[in-house]
Amino acid sequence: MLVHRRQVEIEWGDCDAAGIVFYPRYFAMLDASSAYLFEAATGLKQYAWAKKYGVVGIPMVDTGARFIIPSRYGDVITIETQATEIRRSSFDIAHRVFKGEALAIEARETRVWVAKDPDDPDRIKGVPIPAEVVAALSGK
Amino acid sequence: MLVHRRQVEIEWGDCDAAGIVFYPRYFAMLDASSAYLFEAATGLKQYAWAKKYGVVGIPMVDTGARFIIPSRYGDVITIETQATEIRRSSFDIAHRVFKGEALAIEARETRVWVAKDPDDPDRIKGVPIPAEVVAALSGK
Amino acid sequence: MLVHRRQVEIEWGDCDAAGIVFYPRYFAMLDASSAYLFEAATGLKQYAWAKKYGVVGIPMVDTGARFIIPSRYGDVITIETQATEIRRSSFDIAHRVFKGEALAIEARETRVWVAKDPDDPDRIKGVPIPAEVVAALSGK
Amino acid sequence: MLVHRRQVEIEWGDCDAAGIVFYPRYFAMLDASSAYLFEAATGLKQYAWAKKYGVVGIPMVDTGARFIIPSRYGDVITIETQATEIRRSSFDIAHRVFKGEALAIEARETRVWVAKDPDDPDRIKGVPIPAEVVAALSGK
Repeated sequence: MLVHRRQVEIEWGDCDAAGIVFYPRYFAMLDASSAYLFEAATGLKQYAWAKKYGVVGIPMVDTGARFIIPSRYGDVITIETQATEIRRSSFDIAHRVFKGEALAIEARETRVWVAKDPDDPDRIKGVPIPAEVVAALSGK
Repeated sequence: MLVHRRQVEIEWGDCDAAGIVFYPRYFAMLDASSAYLFEAATGLKQYAWAKKYGVVGIPMVDTGARFIIPSRYGDVITIETQATEIRRSSFDIAHRVFKGEALAIEARETRVWVAKDPDDPDRIKGVPIPAEVVAALSGK
Repeated sequence: MLVHRRQVEIEWGDCDAAGIVFYPRYFAMLDASSAYLFEAATGLKQYAWAKKYGVVGIPMVDTGARFIIPSRYGDVITIETQATEIRRSSFDIAHRVFKGEALAIEARETRVWVAKDPDDPDRIKGVPIPAEVVAALSGK
Repeated sequence: MLVHRRQVEIEWGDCDAAGIVFYPRYFAMLDASSAYLFEAATGLKQYAWAKKYGVVGIPMVDTGARFIIPSRYGDVITIETQATEIRRSSFDIAHRVFKGEALAIEARETRVWVAKDPDDPDRIKGVPIPAEVVAALSGK
């Protein structure tokens, strides 16, 4: 699978009154990492690949995270992101967040590749993920 | 002038590692208070009054705040919001945030009443604020 | 079990460029709801019950959410929060978010009741949850 | 004056339902840039320089921003940050945010160099900024 890896420095505003990262901020970081993974897979920013493939985006339908080691202001974490399973119109993503060598967070996401419903443009529906996107995410 | 007043309880995630509200969170609260002021003035939610008057919204062009007394998790603050000056297509809003009786924050905003530019729908331009909105904000 | 229920109005700043709530914002709302549940169970704000019981707090160790119906600016959602299982020093919380009558989000949390480690004040460790807190969360 | 310059990529979660950056997010970015300026001036992360100089931090007392050009998801902005005036215990910082060559935001901050009040450790008070910090910020 294609792996996207980036470093994020924890900023003051990411932390709560206990001095550690307020966990909803991690979800914002992971969401951005998923966007960067698709940017790496398609060679395009999301609005460009959404236009190219005639879709709306990849909304989240299910996510979860296990928090193992807390991080603090000034820490630099590494986020590793990859698809773990790709179905017809939905797929799973796994994130592993490292603090140095140690695994600090494990997270997973299920998202759907959606387009506007041709029968009702106010609604969205899952559509097949293009073979070339599947191949790129698969690292082929 | 019409005054909108609401109470906000400071939540854990609003605070930073010093245990006080991370000031960008105040701007989010003040932005919501400006929206509530226009809801009070028009009797409609923003998407409804935007549709009624054929506008896009009231983007911020200039804001400032003076932070006098910090607030902490569990504090309940009162935000008072009103227009202070209304021009042809732009207007000023003032917020006063109280902690009990004490003035904790003073803030001001300048926003513009904008519509899509008929000559270029990708652009927006200031348009005259309807007289009935001016009257309602003025408390008349 | 004791159930905490509150309504939250979706604000402009909670939404992303797709016009729906940016899901990390839901986690901030759910975190606050867990705090309100403990406030209801103890009759005290978190800093007060933490002091009373000699603990540091209830850090999150595992969370997950399933997003069923999106919400938009101006929507009012109802968040229902309760403990679902209480162990010696850790416990599970379930949140159900409703949009009108419809279930919009299901979420779960595992948190730990932690105190400073007497052997190393820079570390925290799980300690037994007091019987009266267990009883109150259990609705007894 | 010492100038700190960094690039920030606008992420999905920074944007609001109008598809442009929700302005409170800019304040979080500017706050981080002020922290990076002090890191550049002292060669230390904030917790380290706070410890070295026996202070608590540099709380914001007054800030303002003028928003000239909006930014969208995927845009890369450049934030330039420098002190503009340094008094005994307070100082002013100016940020200029560029989108390409164009000035997109102008912002200013007044912050105070504070330590715990020796007469009341629950309070903070402004104390003189060390000469070496003044010199470093001044680019001398």
